[in-house]
Amino acid sequence: MNEFDYIEKYFQPLTSDEARNLKDDAAIFNQKSNYDLVISTDTLVEGIHFFGHENPKHIAKKSLRVNLSDMAAMGVKPIFYNLSISVPKNKVNNFIPKFARGLFEDQLLYGLKLIGGDLTSSLQHINITITIFGETLNKKSISRDGAKIGDILYVTGVLGLSKIGLDNFFSKSKRFVLAKKRYLFPEPRVDLGLRLNTIANCMIDISDGLIQDASHLAKNSNLSIVLDIGKIPLPSLILKKDILLDAALHGGDDYELLFSCDPIYEKKIKKLSIEKNIAITSIGFFENFKKDYIKIKNHNHYLKDKSYKHF
Amino acid sequence: MNEFDYIEKYFQPLTSDEARNLKDDAAIFNQKSNYDLVISTDTLVEGIHFFGHENPKHIAKKSLRVNLSDMAAMGVKPIFYNLSISVPKNKVNNFIPKFARGLFEDQLLYGLKLIGGDLTSSLQHINITITIFGETLNKKSISRDGAKIGDILYVTGVLGLSKIGLDNFFSKSKRFVLAKKRYLFPEPRVDLGLRLNTIANCMIDISDGLIQDASHLAKNSNLSIVLDIGKIPLPSLILKKDILLDAALHGGDDYELLFSCDPIYEKKIKKLSIEKNIAITSIGFFENFKKDYIKIKNHNHYLKDKSYKHF
Repeated sequence: MNEFDYIEKYFQPLTSDEARNLKDDAAIFNQKSNYDLVISTDTLVEGIHFFGHENPKHIAKKSLRVNLSDMAAMGVKPIFYNLSISVPKNKVNNFIPKFARGLFEDQLLYGLKLIGGDLTSSLQHINITITIFGETLNKKSISRDGAKIGDILYVTGVLGLSKIGLDNFFSKSKRFVLAKKRYLFPEPRVDLGLRLNTIANCMIDISDGLIQDASHLAKNSNLSIVLDIGKIPLPSLILKKDILLDAALHGGDDYELLFSCDPIYEKKIKKLSIEKNIAITSIGFFENFKKDYIKIKNHNHYLKDKSYKHF
Repeated sequence: MNEFDYIEKYFQPLTSDEARNLKDDAAIFNQKSNYDLVISTDTLVEGIHFFGHENPKHIAKKSLRVNLSDMAAMGVKPIFYNLSISVPKNKVNNFIPKFARGLFEDQLLYGLKLIGGDLTSSLQHINITITIFGETLNKKSISRDGAKIGDILYVTGVLGLSKIGLDNFFSKSKRFVLAKKRYLFPEPRVDLGLRLNTIANCMIDISDGLIQDASHLAKNSNLSIVLDIGKIPLPSLILKKDILLDAALHGGDDYELLFSCDPIYEKKIKKLSIEKNIAITSIGFFENFKKDYIKIKNHNHYLKDKSYKHF
């Protein structure tokens, strides 16, 4: 099979009408002026973002979900995605059918379709780039720079679970099953993000660790965050507190939402948390910028940035 | 420097307003209902699409231009692009500044801007994915499936030059200077593509060789192409005719336009060729499908597909 055969057999069934059966040089998107189009890209690289020996179906789901998480963080509705994938010749035959199956399952789950892309060979490693497209509700989306002084900082779910899953990926102990599952399958908070569209002043998804991503919010809003470390929701795992906290503060791949809103919305947030069955925890607040973007409440020391950097 | 520093220093200056200074999870595109958005993606992989030792500026230009060529083939106006790039840690410091410079120069030349993307490390090889966005004139674009019986098949420029440049990339002979330049710097026929928007019935850019790309037009239009091999415009290089013809028929990377239109437009095509100073040559015609998608005029044998396949 050559690339055209793979595309026709495995990717064409995943497409939307806009993709024109992947038989043209491009997809055509009929624009509607009553909403804005929101565009985001995430690349996953073998040996950097995934091992390579995982089930290709799982790799597909993670690739799509990290992109869905960006849509969640903007408070917009994902509508379709574009996929570019490079695979070494000796892996393609095993990889593509399972990878396409994973996309198919998650497309159904999250209600979006493939619009186009590219399939090429590579010399040694798999490289996956997804560009995802969302539409705004009432032309509104949530940026990283909208926090106001006095805003409460909230986070969804628990933090650090994915990092613990990664660190114990080859452990056979049953206590890491949930953590490993979270590392493999992030749960993008798409519905919740949409519901926060009219409430949150700023929002980001935690992909690089709480400290790094919280810093983005503070820096872009020109404010400081006062962080109450004691309130950070940690996984209920029998591990040293230091390990759990370190994973929560600096571990990546959580894909939980970190957002701020005016204190008047406290009850609304609680209701939303119950309705969606997702923990939403207040972990700090925004104040005038002084010296550092992130300040630790009731501690004299300042945090060091230990989050993942590519370079 | 980490990825955030590289993005701020080298990529932020390339952006459009929609990119919001690359400081959000996504770009926001304000839709206009009076035109359609056309979306296309091409990936370039080190060791497959380029050697890796080229000047990064040249790699940048090629990456952008192959995507611009897809816009040309749809007969639409490119407006912005999204870039995802994975670079090994030991190459990033040398690669990114020159690469960004190449993008900058071509952005000016072709009038488009960066909208967003991703920058990650990779283990060994560089991987570049560009998704390009164009807008239609009067909601019209040219597909691959619109050829009519009796349509004339036209091609721009000369074919095979890029393949000869690639095959002789390490030759020091002066006679290959132009061919090597064409291999490095395709000339996407963006303006011409736009002008053909109301004339051409089907169009494609030749990236995989004349035979393979002509087959796409014939197959998607459910017709056969009768190809006059004697008319194919070849480079004026002192090489065996067989070598030139083989490069023209099966060599990739030409990025010339291949299109069909009604014979009534013959004079218009000639005028356009003179106005744009680009050769436009009639090399065949479309007829009812019989047995093969491509038939060779005045020959009894049928062509074998020798074009590049990734797998």
